[in-house]
Amino acid sequence: MKIEELGEIGLIERIVEKFRVDREMVTVGAGDDDCAVIDIEKVRNRFKHLVITTDTLQESTHFPHGISPFQIGWSIVAVNLSDVAAMGAYPFAFTIAMGIPAQTETSFLDELVAGIEECAATYNTAVVGGDITMSKELILTGTCFGFADRPVRRAGAKVGDLICVTGSLGNAALALKLLRGELKAPGDVDVAVKKALFQPVPRINEGITIANSGLATSMIDISDGLALSLAEIAKRSSVGVELYEDKVPVLSDEIRRDLRLSKRELRELAYYSGGDYELLFTIDASALENEQVMSKLIKDVRMSVIGKIVPQEEGIYFKTGEEKEKVEIRGYQHF
Amino acid sequence: MKIEELGEIGLIERIVEKFRVDREMVTVGAGDDDCAVIDIEKVRNRFKHLVITTDTLQESTHFPHGISPFQIGWSIVAVNLSDVAAMGAYPFAFTIAMGIPAQTETSFLDELVAGIEECAATYNTAVVGGDITMSKELILTGTCFGFADRPVRRAGAKVGDLICVTGSLGNAALALKLLRGELKAPGDVDVAVKKALFQPVPRINEGITIANSGLATSMIDISDGLALSLAEIAKRSSVGVELYEDKVPVLSDEIRRDLRLSKRELRELAYYSGGDYELLFTIDASALENEQVMSKLIKDVRMSVIGKIVPQEEGIYFKTGEEKEKVEIRGYQHF
Repeated sequence: MKIEELGEIGLIERIVEKFRVDREMVTVGAGDDDCAVIDIEKVRNRFKHLVITTDTLQESTHFPHGISPFQIGWSIVAVNLSDVAAMGAYPFAFTIAMGIPAQTETSFLDELVAGIEECAATYNTAVVGGDITMSKELILTGTCFGFADRPVRRAGAKVGDLICVTGSLGNAALALKLLRGELKAPGDVDVAVKKALFQPVPRINEGITIANSGLATSMIDISDGLALSLAEIAKRSSVGVELYEDKVPVLSDEIRRDLRLSKRELRELAYYSGGDYELLFTIDASALENEQVMSKLIKDVRMSVIGKIVPQEEGIYFKTGEEKEKVEIRGYQHF
Repeated sequence: MKIEELGEIGLIERIVEKFRVDREMVTVGAGDDDCAVIDIEKVRNRFKHLVITTDTLQESTHFPHGISPFQIGWSIVAVNLSDVAAMGAYPFAFTIAMGIPAQTETSFLDELVAGIEECAATYNTAVVGGDITMSKELILTGTCFGFADRPVRRAGAKVGDLICVTGSLGNAALALKLLRGELKAPGDVDVAVKKALFQPVPRINEGITIANSGLATSMIDISDGLALSLAEIAKRSSVGVELYEDKVPVLSDEIRRDLRLSKRELRELAYYSGGDYELLFTIDASALENEQVMSKLIKDVRMSVIGKIVPQEEGIYFKTGEEKEKVEIRGYQHF
């Protein structure tokens, strides 16, 4: 059955019944009224700030070949949650506006909605509202809301701070290269990196742990590539960046060994491509003296220290021994 | 110049500089960080609830012929504010996701953004964030946030309540008929009703006045036509509706006189067409005894009493003398 056969009301009913919400907090949910209503009495003494972000994904630009409808739904939530994670905030609500071609099969829509619900529920986020229109191509806009006591900004890094990232970089970009046939990889590598591209993991718990450490001075997600994200932290904080290239966690050890990628190729994947949803952040250098905090960050956040903040006039560069090499400032841009 | 020539960063900078925000409340605004940050400390003791709504407008379905880029921008804010108004809430923040064809002229974008800013500023709403992507057609998704102490729901109307609307109905639908050449009207009528269609006025102040009266039992905006909105109040509140047709404010007296529309035509415009952004609400019948409240509502809200709530089993009908005639339940649907 095509979705246009359901009619608008049937369509909305079909969707909203999938969204489970905590009725104590979300007193009015999706499809119930003109607006969703969130009871903020229970949280308002704990948090000082509301954070808001919005992000769009659309067929012609964003969906790699082979992504499933479930993964498309998952992704529109994940990319928004990643921005909430980058503030160190607790997400609580999400709205989804869907432009969908009238000829779309209802089974496609059902899987899409299941992906939205699954990602939101995984991170304690209620889908509280939305809109659905008939459009020429599939286009999804998510808006996500979180609470934060002390949001971590892009501005705030200071000379001497340690520069850190979560997880490992370059997986999504490698998957794109495999999809385009520019590289070949063993089956298990293929599956693992495509999952990173198709179903990104927002670093919500990591962001909260980093913010709650009390040591974070700045944070950003690296969805447009490490180079642009470093440049953004540097610009907003009026600082420079010294990068230890051999400390940057590019792919897993196994994948690097299997694929025998050159230094230039590794740089291209980790620094100049988009699609990784790890967090880039800076922490006060005093963290080094606090073994408990450091081991918690390394274990819970899978943190790597990849550089240090230097004065702004020094720019953004790789440091190897005594050698300095400029980092190019380029990455993923939509226009 | 085409917008694709600006590049993503240039484009975002061009847009965000237009949005003025109150920095005491919006501590991080559009373009500044991963998320916008709103300081809720100042409001959290006044309000118990956060309300959220999202609505999309797109070229192929929603933009009537002759609408200007400024009016498109105004409209995407207004249709979202209208949903906030229908809860009786105070709007405070707005995010805008724009899908824009790469070949769009920058002057078109500038006017669009000016319309967004103008409507938001008129209703004390800060544009705090957004997203911009390249799409096949112009598609805009707005998300609007408000605070409310006692949000007015669609559910809540009870037998005996008065049914009321703000302003006058049918103007937007009449404008569509004029645009399609199905009717002719004098120049001043043409201008007035097209403005209602192209640049709708969200009833923010009216919604707040209605909620603050303490007498409202239910409320909805009538953007999909009066009939569907009445049906929605009736369904959510488990009640029926008795409608006094001659009390329903359809168009202005002058326009009705000029155009000599039949009863059937007037019904079509006011009950079964979309595009009016007035508020439909119910108030406790005790209001009739409170002259001060009634005169305030009639003056400040331009309220007309158009019917009363009856038991659910009686359905939704026009009452003329002793005669009852069923109201058809149809109106504007996207699919």
